[in-house]
Amino acid sequence: MRIPKHIGIIPDGNRRWAVNKGLSKEKGYDKGLNPGLQLFKLCEEIGVEEITYYGFTMDNTKRPKIQRLSFTKACIDAVKMLTSENASLLVVGNTESEMFPKSLIPFTLKRRDFGKGGIKVNFLVNYGWQWDLRDYFTLNNKNTNITNMIKSRDISRIDLVIRWGGRRRLSGFPPLQTVYSDIYVIDDYWPDFKPEHFYQALEWYDKQDITLGG
Amino acid sequence: MRIPKHIGIIPDGNRRWAVNKGLSKEKGYDKGLNPGLQLFKLCEEIGVEEITYYGFTMDNTKRPKIQRLSFTKACIDAVKMLTSENASLLVVGNTESEMFPKSLIPFTLKRRDFGKGGIKVNFLVNYGWQWDLRDYFTLNNKNTNITNMIKSRDISRIDLVIRWGGRRRLSGFPPLQTVYSDIYVIDDYWPDFKPEHFYQALEWYDKQDITLGG
Repeated sequence: MRIPKHIGIIPDGNRRWAVNKGLSKEKGYDKGLNPGLQLFKLCEEIGVEEITYYGFTMDNTKRPKIQRLSFTKACIDAVKMLTSENASLLVVGNTESEMFPKSLIPFTLKRRDFGKGGIKVNFLVNYGWQWDLRDYFTLNNKNTNITNMIKSRDISRIDLVIRWGGRRRLSGFPPLQTVYSDIYVIDDYWPDFKPEHFYQALEWYDKQDITLGG
Repeated sequence: MRIPKHIGIIPDGNRRWAVNKGLSKEKGYDKGLNPGLQLFKLCEEIGVEEITYYGFTMDNTKRPKIQRLSFTKACIDAVKMLTSENASLLVVGNTESEMFPKSLIPFTLKRRDFGKGGIKVNFLVNYGWQWDLRDYFTLNNKNTNITNMIKSRDISRIDLVIRWGGRRRLSGFPPLQTVYSDIYVIDDYWPDFKPEHFYQALEWYDKQDITLGG
């Protein structure tokens, strides 16, 4: 089986999950923590080399404050949780904003190994695609590799994006790394994560003909 | 019904269509001309304001020469065909390459009205996302609107991408304009285009909750 080297995760549907359960919207976010850990372990098991989790974006912070506080806490908890695993962690996002949680700043400075190190995990926190690309320039050097000049340059090309919650879009997930990504959408909400979702995505990916335009 | 202002078209599956018919791969491309015109007329009818067609990319030109000549001819013919319609045409792509067909150069210089003008039509010919973004810079002005500095700056944000041929990916379709696009995939190959495909995509789009991250 052809295993994607790098999987991008869009864990959507937390608010809709909460509303369906008769809860207020912000109650959905911490129900995404266990799925995130389960998924990490499945990736580890099958030999995925890199995972990028969509935490929250600068756009998302325009939502009601109670929701913002709740998804910010869930991201902090998720990153802390991953420090107990064997992982090489990097948080990517705009730290020059009050919306960025201070406790995660050390994780943005450089990729850090936890446990025995191993699988690279990128966690997008207060990420924005415009922020990411803003300092992208070439200074007349036509041979410069442009992807080296973006803020998310330590995140490699993403082979497979898996999105929960039924929406068929990238919603600002790092645009340059997803130019050729295969995108698999799961209708269930992220808090209803099941390992079968992941296996379905992998089986589908295995059947795709990857050409990168050639 | 909520009509997308701007629709992106990825007309994939021409080669697979040809092989299924027992033809050689390059025979599929000119079978995409009529579908392209039919789709244009449907968009006109319902009041779409802008269409972007994925012609071919710089990556695609690495394919065997007989295929390259065939898809290049199909693009030239498609653009010429659209000059008989009421449309405001622009071709976007890397003209500083032998792979760019000379007869289309006039269409790249500025958007030109044909007939009574009207719906904006962008046709990507020898397009490359890296080429598009290469001169993207900010000169320390943090407030600059970065999307004004890309080569495809005359192409607006795309609301709905419709892809034929079953693949669930963007394959280098203009990355900054598709950051928030809803993506609808049709399994049939492009030469098998039916108006129903388009109506299905519109019905699906009408049900999507567009938030742009907010």
